Amino acid sequence: MTEEKPATPETAEKPKAPTEARRAEDNVVFIGKKPIMNYVIACLTFFNTGGRQVCVKARGRAISRAVDTIELLRRSFVKDLGLVDIKLGTEEVTGEDGRRSNVSTIEITVAKKEGS
Amino acid sequence: MTEEKPATPETAEKPKAPTEARRAEDNVVFIGKKPIMNYVIACLTFFNTGGRQVCVKARGRAISRAVDTIELLRRSFVKDLGLVDIKLGTEEVTGEDGRRSNVSTIEITVAKKEGS
Repeated sequence: MTEEKPATPETAEKPKAPTEARRAEDNVVFIGKKPIMNYVIACLTFFNTGGRQVCVKARGRAISRAVDTIELLRRSFVKDLGLVDIKLGTEEVTGEDGRRSNVSTIEITVAKKEGS
Repeated sequence: MTEEKPATPETAEKPKAPTEARRAEDNVVFIGKKPIMNYVIACLTFFNTGGRQVCVKARGRAISRAVDTIELLRRSFVKDLGLVDIKLGTEEVTGEDGRRSNVSTIEITVAKKEGS
């Protein structure tokens, strides 16, 4: 007998209280290998608890999924979503065998437009 | 007997004459499934023939490769490269079986900084 957990988007830490004073840096969704809809819901959760801005971060092959997430969010759920910033970067990762390699990163920040 | 083609980056149309008057819109590199180095060389060709700006376009899973291309170019070849613009979008594509699906797109424009 195993306890069934509800299918919550684990990538997004749920804010403890819906407060406008929450720092924008907290609104981060890390993109991994789960279905894209999970990340879209994570972003929606931020907006529905009073957040005006979300940052989606990804690296390596997940970068295209980050763009998918933003596009799905913008087209289907939050029509008045505006791009705030996109940052590209490179991180050095060390594999299990000790080999170093570079991996590209992306950070896409989007916000609801004012007055909506 | 087949003719062997030299391994040139086919994605980038080579400009006929190195002229500064060339429109910026011509400097487009489409990212596909070839090794990333091919696309980096395509970008370098533009810069070496007098271009100051290159636009890298990709869609779907190639998006992460577009970011890889830009990062490799910036880190290893053109140190004074600045981001000009990043556009995200969605295109509708029709598969061979007639099914429609949406695919995300990215357009990253980079330029050499002035005075270099």
